[in-house]
Amino acid sequence: MGHFDAFNNDLTKKNTFHNLNNHLNSLEDDYFYHLYLGKNQNDLKAMFGDVKFVCMGGTSKRMQKFAHYMKDLLGYRIPTGLTLNDITKITDRYSMYKVGPVLFANHGIGCPSLSILLNEIMKLLHYAGCEDLTFFRIGTCGGIGVDPGTVIITDQAVDGLLRPEYRQYILGKEKIRETQCDRQLIKDLLKISDEMQISRKFSVVNGKTLCAHDFYEGQSRIDGVFCDYTKEEKLDFLKQCYEKGVVNMEMESLCFAGMLNYAKVKFGIVCVALLNRLENDQITASHELILEYQERPFEIIGEYVRRKIMNNEE
Amino acid sequence: MGHFDAFNNDLTKKNTFHNLNNHLNSLEDDYFYHLYLGKNQNDLKAMFGDVKFVCMGGTSKRMQKFAHYMKDLLGYRIPTGLTLNDITKITDRYSMYKVGPVLFANHGIGCPSLSILLNEIMKLLHYAGCEDLTFFRIGTCGGIGVDPGTVIITDQAVDGLLRPEYRQYILGKEKIRETQCDRQLIKDLLKISDEMQISRKFSVVNGKTLCAHDFYEGQSRIDGVFCDYTKEEKLDFLKQCYEKGVVNMEMESLCFAGMLNYAKVKFGIVCVALLNRLENDQITASHELILEYQERPFEIIGEYVRRKIMNNEE
Repeated sequence: MGHFDAFNNDLTKKNTFHNLNNHLNSLEDDYFYHLYLGKNQNDLKAMFGDVKFVCMGGTSKRMQKFAHYMKDLLGYRIPTGLTLNDITKITDRYSMYKVGPVLFANHGIGCPSLSILLNEIMKLLHYAGCEDLTFFRIGTCGGIGVDPGTVIITDQAVDGLLRPEYRQYILGKEKIRETQCDRQLIKDLLKISDEMQISRKFSVVNGKTLCAHDFYEGQSRIDGVFCDYTKEEKLDFLKQCYEKGVVNMEMESLCFAGMLNYAKVKFGIVCVALLNRLENDQITASHELILEYQERPFEIIGEYVRRKIMNNEE
Repeated sequence: MGHFDAFNNDLTKKNTFHNLNNHLNSLEDDYFYHLYLGKNQNDLKAMFGDVKFVCMGGTSKRMQKFAHYMKDLLGYRIPTGLTLNDITKITDRYSMYKVGPVLFANHGIGCPSLSILLNEIMKLLHYAGCEDLTFFRIGTCGGIGVDPGTVIITDQAVDGLLRPEYRQYILGKEKIRETQCDRQLIKDLLKISDEMQISRKFSVVNGKTLCAHDFYEGQSRIDGVFCDYTKEEKLDFLKQCYEKGVVNMEMESLCFAGMLNYAKVKFGIVCVALLNRLENDQITASHELILEYQERPFEIIGEYVRRKIMNNEE
């Protein structure tokens, strides 16, 4: 697989996961049930030891597309007769692709689905001995006060009560993890967007992201199966969000930020807005336009990864 | 499509959705974004008007299997040259199959993912003019104090603090929906299991179901990427759950029960235990055995649906 084999660990400071579960040391086996991979079943170090970047997003098709995009961008050489393969294709829960030091996986919809993938991938990368990891979530979202097609980099994830907290119930008690995103990485991504003159093609903004646990009532839509509020009350709430710095709504950022913050690992969340929620609830953009929008975060994250790899090789 | 065309509406009392969103009447269009179907895009009445039963479960493969199982059980005649088709195959988020009056769909993992599917399918069935609907969720779960392979019918879904409440944040306020399951349907399913002498093959029990929003810490596992409690504290909590009538843990029952209870529609939740959580955290059953376990709820729900259809035809 060419030049990636020699990849070394100088990208950033050493950075394994913090707050790692101590029980992992004493488990005889650790089988990642939703990935059909395991500590004793697979040579994880050989398979994943060189991973530096992990890219996650909702659907498997989008992540497969991103893997192909990255393969072309990085000039990753695939020997004749081979192709990218879904590493977890035996399960129909998640898909996973790998292009040199970049791992791609789809997390499905919502924090619970993402939580399983993050748990299992983080354990896998821990057993594989990976260091200096950077995680990205690329997603779609509803924008608040921005044009459809705008790319939004999350500063901080907030819940439906606008608290920057990922809350879990653990052994009958509520536990809270903070959801601030990596400030340096946000700056780096904005700088790269500037240097690439992305703004000639589309806008890139940053702000708070409201992570809802449903798509309809939880995101103040009036077109769900239930709705006991008026259009005016909806707009009031969305404007209130906007005034408090919330620029988009999606369904995974609390868990992504909460878990990765707790692990003290570098991560970023970059989503494209499919609509402006101050204008409507229904997504009316054509299928083709949505597919085009969905690839916009690829450009920024792709370039970030490309530069990191190039700098490391110099 | 044979004898299902004449299906009439006498199964139970008329029962459209209660508490339905009034705004739906005034929407010019209603496009179900995650299903790629819509009010104006599809003849929903022609496509779905005869639906009486909706079966949901986590993965698309399992739901496809259940559709084929039901097709055989009901003697549903498919004309030569045709086969069951994934109605929503253009999206890779959800899959949907239809066998006469029975609709099948996979909801992914967790309440948020299920919530989207329920919203869009309930709206679809509303526009299609369906009546007298019964919903089922069939799933896999961790049992508490039961043998692997036991089938569990949920009485009531409870959250991680053992409250029978589906909680959502709507316009910045917390809203609560009750999560009691349909008592008559539970009795009917238990009676059918008895009459089928299911207990010669496997156990069927009923009790409370703890719905967690993650698979590891939220379900008191000690093998997640994070864990700051001991094995003893874990077991104490699981035993405490068991003493309070909780017989299994999964990740969707709160939303399923909360939404369908609110809509006052008949529904049941039937899951198979892949392991006994009082004994371990890791799922060690073979892939083949898990596939066999996963089909156990098919037998009970299949027979329930078959009898309802037969009685209706008499």
